[in-house]
Amino acid sequence: MVPPLVTPFHPDGRLDLAAFEANLDAYAERDFAGYLVLGSNGEAGSLEEDEKLALLGLARARSGRRVLLAGTGLESTRATVDLTRKAADRGADAVLVLTPCYYKPSMTVEALQRHFEAVAEASPVPVLLYSVPAFTGLPWPPGLAAALAPHPGIAGMKESSGDVGLLGRIVASVPSSFQVLCGSGPVFYPALCVGAAGGVLAVANCAPLPVVAVLRAFEAGDHARARRVQEALTPLAVAVTATHGVAGLKAAMDLAGFRGGHVRAPLLPLPPGAREQLRTLLDRANAADDD
Amino acid sequence: MVPPLVTPFHPDGRLDLAAFEANLDAYAERDFAGYLVLGSNGEAGSLEEDEKLALLGLARARSGRRVLLAGTGLESTRATVDLTRKAADRGADAVLVLTPCYYKPSMTVEALQRHFEAVAEASPVPVLLYSVPAFTGLPWPPGLAAALAPHPGIAGMKESSGDVGLLGRIVASVPSSFQVLCGSGPVFYPALCVGAAGGVLAVANCAPLPVVAVLRAFEAGDHARARRVQEALTPLAVAVTATHGVAGLKAAMDLAGFRGGHVRAPLLPLPPGAREQLRTLLDRANAADDD
Amino acid sequence: MVPPLVTPFHPDGRLDLAAFEANLDAYAERDFAGYLVLGSNGEAGSLEEDEKLALLGLARARSGRRVLLAGTGLESTRATVDLTRKAADRGADAVLVLTPCYYKPSMTVEALQRHFEAVAEASPVPVLLYSVPAFTGLPWPPGLAAALAPHPGIAGMKESSGDVGLLGRIVASVPSSFQVLCGSGPVFYPALCVGAAGGVLAVANCAPLPVVAVLRAFEAGDHARARRVQEALTPLAVAVTATHGVAGLKAAMDLAGFRGGHVRAPLLPLPPGAREQLRTLLDRANAADDD
Amino acid sequence: MVPPLVTPFHPDGRLDLAAFEANLDAYAERDFAGYLVLGSNGEAGSLEEDEKLALLGLARARSGRRVLLAGTGLESTRATVDLTRKAADRGADAVLVLTPCYYKPSMTVEALQRHFEAVAEASPVPVLLYSVPAFTGLPWPPGLAAALAPHPGIAGMKESSGDVGLLGRIVASVPSSFQVLCGSGPVFYPALCVGAAGGVLAVANCAPLPVVAVLRAFEAGDHARARRVQEALTPLAVAVTATHGVAGLKAAMDLAGFRGGHVRAPLLPLPPGAREQLRTLLDRANAADDD
Repeated sequence: MVPPLVTPFHPDGRLDLAAFEANLDAYAERDFAGYLVLGSNGEAGSLEEDEKLALLGLARARSGRRVLLAGTGLESTRATVDLTRKAADRGADAVLVLTPCYYKPSMTVEALQRHFEAVAEASPVPVLLYSVPAFTGLPWPPGLAAALAPHPGIAGMKESSGDVGLLGRIVASVPSSFQVLCGSGPVFYPALCVGAAGGVLAVANCAPLPVVAVLRAFEAGDHARARRVQEALTPLAVAVTATHGVAGLKAAMDLAGFRGGHVRAPLLPLPPGAREQLRTLLDRANAADDD
Repeated sequence: MVPPLVTPFHPDGRLDLAAFEANLDAYAERDFAGYLVLGSNGEAGSLEEDEKLALLGLARARSGRRVLLAGTGLESTRATVDLTRKAADRGADAVLVLTPCYYKPSMTVEALQRHFEAVAEASPVPVLLYSVPAFTGLPWPPGLAAALAPHPGIAGMKESSGDVGLLGRIVASVPSSFQVLCGSGPVFYPALCVGAAGGVLAVANCAPLPVVAVLRAFEAGDHARARRVQEALTPLAVAVTATHGVAGLKAAMDLAGFRGGHVRAPLLPLPPGAREQLRTLLDRANAADDD
Repeated sequence: MVPPLVTPFHPDGRLDLAAFEANLDAYAERDFAGYLVLGSNGEAGSLEEDEKLALLGLARARSGRRVLLAGTGLESTRATVDLTRKAADRGADAVLVLTPCYYKPSMTVEALQRHFEAVAEASPVPVLLYSVPAFTGLPWPPGLAAALAPHPGIAGMKESSGDVGLLGRIVASVPSSFQVLCGSGPVFYPALCVGAAGGVLAVANCAPLPVVAVLRAFEAGDHARARRVQEALTPLAVAVTATHGVAGLKAAMDLAGFRGGHVRAPLLPLPPGAREQLRTLLDRANAADDD
Repeated sequence: MVPPLVTPFHPDGRLDLAAFEANLDAYAERDFAGYLVLGSNGEAGSLEEDEKLALLGLARARSGRRVLLAGTGLESTRATVDLTRKAADRGADAVLVLTPCYYKPSMTVEALQRHFEAVAEASPVPVLLYSVPAFTGLPWPPGLAAALAPHPGIAGMKESSGDVGLLGRIVASVPSSFQVLCGSGPVFYPALCVGAAGGVLAVANCAPLPVVAVLRAFEAGDHARARRVQEALTPLAVAVTATHGVAGLKAAMDLAGFRGGHVRAPLLPLPPGAREQLRTLLDRANAADDD
């Protein structure tokens, strides 16, 4: 289980590195395999390059032997290559490369394939493909994972559509060495059932225990428990992604004793009243883990 | 497992009742819990009322003690009520009621709820709700199943979106007496994992053995086998629904020794070349069951 | 200008033929070229065949020398042919044939082309194609109008997407003998600019004067007036279609002195409060015509 | 008429500033009101900040008294403000600010309104709003233009959805001082009919004469000519945007004697065979202008 770390900001929009470090310290006690920095939940698109490298450096220093993934996907291939090299240089163990998505009608299978291959050729570390249609507006083309899986520089994929059938078909189309990670908290358990190798889940930032419990129950063959904890976790997972976005996730972290901090505009703070709802959902998710 | 029976036609478009009966005779030996007549795969929208009642009567006569479901959803509430009563009168054990869908912007949660309630009030037999957004263009509104589940005349739902997360959230929102049936072959196994009570799957018409094998493996707790058979079944399930539609399903039935027969226009016959592909997919799906 | 006539119902759901006739009598004094019966705004999908033929017969008797169009599109080709013949027999001057739309993934260009050709072959009267994606969920395939325009039995098309660019490209792709009618009130004026031959507009039922004024101003080359009246008409046109649907249209007719009557379930009556808003929009639309 | 200038690249991906200048020199003889640099067709998302400022500086030096618009929209409000100030400092007369679009579910009316207001507060030059749903995946919220129009720092909008009805409703909702520019070549003429104040059209880069001819014919009240030239222009306008994207536009520029140059990856070069088709479409578009 790998949480996609949030980037806490001060009220005036500056990076709050102390809060970022505090979260890493708190997560050190959790059963996490590693961290993702500079992902969608890290507000990567709202960060300058120097901020990105500062966060990466801090995360590396605090990650110990855990795996450190860095989101380095940008709109152009050349900029993605450039950031990928810098991230590897700062200690990222692997990079997560988002589908470019601005010129949607031009992002054909061939265009995406060449992009990922070019980044993988140039990257000193393994590349993970990253698809999140809710943000990119770009569905993942059938067959693309299978076409890229043989590349020695491409190690796997984060699939965040929430479409369990699609994730399963991707798993079935690639060799077992190509790891498909689930990026959608509300379907983590069924994604594991169809072959996901693990999860990179926003909700892990605020509710590490039940998220890990789903994984461990699944690994132990205890499907009844995995399903039960998932059902308790799902409303929270929906609330901190689809419903309230990063602002919701950060508020839930604050409620759970972590340090979410503020979002950067144009994201808005959580609307009044939502905090109490999040507290209820957090309590329910954590209670499921006690059973 | 309940196959949604196809309606075989002669080349000139007339009902081929002999073929319909032959299929029921062949299915009698399979491990099916019942049948659905007049569903989407039965080309219900292209049948006249007298044809519908003839098919229903035949199915009742050949179903023995198996459960017989009948699709009776029409655009207007009054026509749906009328057909529902006739279906119950002809021996349907329960009816499957599609979301009305022509006036999409007007099909609010409230409009749909009142429609289902009115049909349930008037129906002599239990009502199953039916959502199939690929055909209706209408997503299932969150909360509608939970709102309708307490109604004594409403027994469950056929959920055919293929969205496993949605199906799981519906299951989690209703009492266990409300049965949620999976209507999407490519996600049958993960749908069972999140709580589907069974399946009403087009692909069961042409490949009964592997479809039943997924269900029995799941019930036996053999998740590895359920997943393996599902993976072998999925390409066929996609081919006879999303890719080739009812014409593909009927052709696959012919290849498997059942009698699919012709489709009614505007559906077109299977394009040349697709038959061989279906044969390959059928063989693979059936081979998985031999293990 | 051709209004797509609504079908008034009594509160208990029965046809209100007296109201239907009263509307025809009132429209006789308006500058209409004809009428469409059994269209989307006529709730055709909620009518039985005997009701359809009764409405058609009445409309024929009250239409005098005006053109009478009848909506005869059904899901199957054979049922569409059958109803088309009956409509011609009852006096329809032409029929409007909706794209079949239930089996969306199967409604390829070829399937639709064959369907329309088969209906046109069998129809004793000219056929008009009908596309309304907001209800069918089916976009009009580029090139289909041009492919069908040469058919001697196909006279034109009602294009109700509201996409002026699409309508213009269709006009540019067909001979001038193929008439493209605009079916979207909010874009009537720009549709005329790009070549629409006229309009079949829901809003004409409740606001005949401004709708006709747009057409006459355009024909007279008075673009400033056409645009001004269109701008005053647009909010009403949106309210009686996209926002409130047929229930809104019927309520606006009642307010305007026509007889909209009730809708059939599952359509719901207009929500409380909306009637006053409609009155305001009606007044504004009619005031623009006084200039 | 304002062309959104392309950014020519060398085959190795470096900026080709000489080609950029050559285009400005060639356009000096055309009937253009100004230029837009760093728009979607300028591949702004694939440029580094220093490249952006270099292009802007060159454009300013070569624009004389023509209006110079600069695209400065980025994902975060703070980065947009920063680039806006730099662009004003380099001589931009106004800035075009794209809707942020990565966190789609969070980009509510309120979030977008606050973003645009914050940029307008900080901008030394007038702000134009920019909506292009084909790239952003974000529809323009009804009412947002009217809410922002009173702001003294907001001068207008580039509306590139191609939805003429929407553009007309925006025009009708704002004071005449708020200029709505059409950003979709295939609907330029009908957009002018419903009140667009001008156009910022990709196709103007490769076919300046017919594009300007549409505008001048419209202004002269010659609707027949405007429509005729638009019809001849539309297939080219579709080809250099929706069909072939920026690579198509650049190739068409090369064919027309301008200097399109190469695209930056992940955009792919024009596929073989498309060049001849573009030549035919260019010839047709330019021939219409000779009439």
